[in-house]
Amino acid sequence: MAKKIQGVLPPVPTAFDADGNFDAAAQRANFKRWLETGLHGFVILGSNGEYTLLNRAEKIRVLELARETIPADRLMIAGTGADSTRETIELTQRAAQLGADAALIVTPHYFRNQMNAAAWTQHYRAVADASPIPIMIYNVPALTTLEIDAATVIELAQHPNIKGLKDSSANVTKMGEIVRYAPPDFAVMVGTGSAILAAISIGAKGVIPALGNIAPRECIAIYDAFHAGDFHTARNTQLRMIRPNNAVTAKWGVPGLKAALEELGYYGGPPRAPLSPLGANERAKLRDILREAELLT
Amino acid sequence: MAKKIQGVLPPVPTAFDADGNFDAAAQRANFKRWLETGLHGFVILGSNGEYTLLNRAEKIRVLELARETIPADRLMIAGTGADSTRETIELTQRAAQLGADAALIVTPHYFRNQMNAAAWTQHYRAVADASPIPIMIYNVPALTTLEIDAATVIELAQHPNIKGLKDSSANVTKMGEIVRYAPPDFAVMVGTGSAILAAISIGAKGVIPALGNIAPRECIAIYDAFHAGDFHTARNTQLRMIRPNNAVTAKWGVPGLKAALEELGYYGGPPRAPLSPLGANERAKLRDILREAELLT
Amino acid sequence: MAKKIQGVLPPVPTAFDADGNFDAAAQRANFKRWLETGLHGFVILGSNGEYTLLNRAEKIRVLELARETIPADRLMIAGTGADSTRETIELTQRAAQLGADAALIVTPHYFRNQMNAAAWTQHYRAVADASPIPIMIYNVPALTTLEIDAATVIELAQHPNIKGLKDSSANVTKMGEIVRYAPPDFAVMVGTGSAILAAISIGAKGVIPALGNIAPRECIAIYDAFHAGDFHTARNTQLRMIRPNNAVTAKWGVPGLKAALEELGYYGGPPRAPLSPLGANERAKLRDILREAELLT
Amino acid sequence: MAKKIQGVLPPVPTAFDADGNFDAAAQRANFKRWLETGLHGFVILGSNGEYTLLNRAEKIRVLELARETIPADRLMIAGTGADSTRETIELTQRAAQLGADAALIVTPHYFRNQMNAAAWTQHYRAVADASPIPIMIYNVPALTTLEIDAATVIELAQHPNIKGLKDSSANVTKMGEIVRYAPPDFAVMVGTGSAILAAISIGAKGVIPALGNIAPRECIAIYDAFHAGDFHTARNTQLRMIRPNNAVTAKWGVPGLKAALEELGYYGGPPRAPLSPLGANERAKLRDILREAELLT
Repeated sequence: MAKKIQGVLPPVPTAFDADGNFDAAAQRANFKRWLETGLHGFVILGSNGEYTLLNRAEKIRVLELARETIPADRLMIAGTGADSTRETIELTQRAAQLGADAALIVTPHYFRNQMNAAAWTQHYRAVADASPIPIMIYNVPALTTLEIDAATVIELAQHPNIKGLKDSSANVTKMGEIVRYAPPDFAVMVGTGSAILAAISIGAKGVIPALGNIAPRECIAIYDAFHAGDFHTARNTQLRMIRPNNAVTAKWGVPGLKAALEELGYYGGPPRAPLSPLGANERAKLRDILREAELLT
Repeated sequence: MAKKIQGVLPPVPTAFDADGNFDAAAQRANFKRWLETGLHGFVILGSNGEYTLLNRAEKIRVLELARETIPADRLMIAGTGADSTRETIELTQRAAQLGADAALIVTPHYFRNQMNAAAWTQHYRAVADASPIPIMIYNVPALTTLEIDAATVIELAQHPNIKGLKDSSANVTKMGEIVRYAPPDFAVMVGTGSAILAAISIGAKGVIPALGNIAPRECIAIYDAFHAGDFHTARNTQLRMIRPNNAVTAKWGVPGLKAALEELGYYGGPPRAPLSPLGANERAKLRDILREAELLT
Repeated sequence: MAKKIQGVLPPVPTAFDADGNFDAAAQRANFKRWLETGLHGFVILGSNGEYTLLNRAEKIRVLELARETIPADRLMIAGTGADSTRETIELTQRAAQLGADAALIVTPHYFRNQMNAAAWTQHYRAVADASPIPIMIYNVPALTTLEIDAATVIELAQHPNIKGLKDSSANVTKMGEIVRYAPPDFAVMVGTGSAILAAISIGAKGVIPALGNIAPRECIAIYDAFHAGDFHTARNTQLRMIRPNNAVTAKWGVPGLKAALEELGYYGGPPRAPLSPLGANERAKLRDILREAELLT
Repeated sequence: MAKKIQGVLPPVPTAFDADGNFDAAAQRANFKRWLETGLHGFVILGSNGEYTLLNRAEKIRVLELARETIPADRLMIAGTGADSTRETIELTQRAAQLGADAALIVTPHYFRNQMNAAAWTQHYRAVADASPIPIMIYNVPALTTLEIDAATVIELAQHPNIKGLKDSSANVTKMGEIVRYAPPDFAVMVGTGSAILAAISIGAKGVIPALGNIAPRECIAIYDAFHAGDFHTARNTQLRMIRPNNAVTAKWGVPGLKAALEELGYYGGPPRAPLSPLGANERAKLRDILREAELLT
């Protein structure tokens, strides 16, 4: 039986060495530490995994290592979306063979004028039909500049193999509508660590936050406190996490996330070009933010 | 002492007769009904009041009537923003004379390339200095296509006469940051009825929702249930309100709001050109939405 | 008989004194100099005239002075658009009384979700029906963030009192389509001094450029050289004008335009708040641009 | 010595059979007809070549076939851009081996918040340094929603191996600035068939138009007439081409282009999912447009 999609599932960055090659040892070491925190699972090859900067062979290598490292009782969700339906299907099937529990499929976006509800419906149904594992819709307008609407998601949620949505826009109106009208086992997952409390307040099942890589315990604390009825702790922790979350998402993106990992004793390493490592000035500001948020002492 | 800015404060539509003139009797009748519901106050001349379609003399007439009708113990907030600082100050001072408790000042936006943090800071401080009543910042990117950032709001919140923010973008990340870093008496008010629960979960003081005009009791129920610890009622009511809220905001705007008022026995009347009344097809869909939400039987 | 809408017609800035009041003497002095250059006419109360920062009485005063100063054989086009159809009609009729030859009507834009082809068609027809003088459509997406499409303009151009378009987007595709399919006496006027040659190459009748205020002779030279078949002069002058044009439009807007006027011996004066005068650093860069373009020695 | 980048160079669509596989015979047949028209060369694997829907092996096969088919004296430009600098370099080097004369490199765009002048400068310089053939910058905001600014292009144009720009935005202001300030042998190529005349008027060296696939003779006629001083023919032909150009670009994109090819006796075939073939209604409208433009009888 498929594992439930819920909880705190960080989209892990892909570790590169100084030459820009995949660094398997570093990736493994990071997983080891993350696994000690109680995280419910992981998303591999999401945007924070720099999936658009990896070729096919590299993606497969990253997925293999992840499954070797992540215990079978924890969720492993693979980012397998591409602009082409054909390519998305091939990579999704490969991820299933490699042991992924579900696949996260970004909305195709390059041919944006043609990417409407009809095109996406056709795309997601074709992938869901061909996929041995459940798939999730990945809506990330900050990167794609497109927004899949609630009605289309609700209709797609009727498909027996489309089991969730990652919504990185933190749009509580849209998430709320989907929570109310999609089947109960369809998992709405918010895509940012700033909106964990707001999203689970209106019925989201969990979160896929970049923040989860650098503040796993705090993300879990928000989630657990809310479900335990300790609203005070949930809110205070959430508010404390907003600035560090911004630092590793909207403000500095993947370079910020990798720098923060280094500050916190994880492996960070360089992002791939054309992304650049965080500069020294930003690095100092980042440390201030991490300290103010009590993530760094 | 100034009244606290909190609770459910609908931005009321301005009533026009069939010739497009202000209909004072109809406006008064609507207020009479709204006042029976326990609403904490009202925003006059907001976007839903079609403020950009009224001239100065009409605005003053609408404010006069509102203050005559709204009891002194309920909040009356006047929308007095204009693209010009000078015009904004004049209208704000006039609103104060007419008894408004606070003024809601939209971000100037026409000269958008010059409208940055510095320009807005100068604008809001000049208005706050000149205003006899507290002012609120009004951020409504769905109409202005601009977004005032959290840091600027937090800095402006230090001014003793800048006392709140209406954020219509339902951006819980931004609202949360402001809640945490602005002075405790600075009121973050969310500007949409779909995000009441999410916003108050992270510390907003209340809501200024178009929805409050057609579903005042439900908006109050969400607010009250949350504060009473009845999370179940708060969430269920909130989720039920999302589609009617969309109908009177993003989907059909002011024409939708006025049509919904008519369906529910209030005075609706035509919006001013270039806005048009809702067509018959949309009207039928609107009724379905109101019925599904249990607002209409 | 109505004057032909064609040639180089700068949208003149409104002169304010140090207190922000209309400075009639300064305005008159500027007109006197502009009139010596052979400009074919003027647009009063366009965006560069800061029309959104003036009240009704001020607008009327500015129009009165303009008509007193501009000889009867030169075009005077009045910007009379407002978000409300009613207000637009009233101001257009007033401008006609004051002697304007035509009215330039910006696309209503505040209620942007409702501002579609149908709403604009209704708006422009209502204004054209009520106006004693020909009207022009004013499309300025850099300020309104909306774009009226070619098909709607072409249909509106069938109205006997809708006689032209100012298109500030420099969209040669759209302007070309309108040139081909609108009636021959419908005047497509490009709204930026960087695109004079490109626009008249594909059939525009002229230009309404902020640049025309600071480089009237150069704008006329491009126009005249093209029509005289001297393509070499037209292109070289056009290319030389791009950077000064950017300086007084996209880069620094009205503050840049007013600063450039001062550098060139015209009256500039402050823009109205929330606009701010150009800072000293920008001022120095502006001078470099004017020198490189041979406008300043 | 490198061939000059100039003239009319259509970005050719990639031919797929009914199963969605590359159809080499159909591709060859199309080239045969295009070559009879006097086109100055071709762009392979541009956006119209659906490059984002092809895998690496397919891209190589398409380039091989193109070079086999395109005579050595005609330009073959290969689209080799990817979001990753590393991948872009690899594909560019492979294209050079396969005989491409130049490479067209789209601005990386997925990590849009980090994609600024510095990131692009680093990217293009790294690719130019590593490329055995000249490279061109490809700016296509309609697809990437990002815009590389004139100053960055002008600076990049100093690199001895960065030899041109394809600007699909038809922005005559930007193209004009680059024409004036970049080295004389830097080729500004406009990316749309609606703006051929406007662009070459201000100094563009040619055009890379989707329209060139279905109206090669007309595109060449505009180009040749302008250079022969026959302005009348150039303008009339240009204006006649605007609507068919829109049909195969902004309006219906690649599906429209492939449908138009079929109408005109070329091989069209299906686009790859998630793109869909043009529906019957749109097809009928397309035929009307082609007839009105005298491309179809």
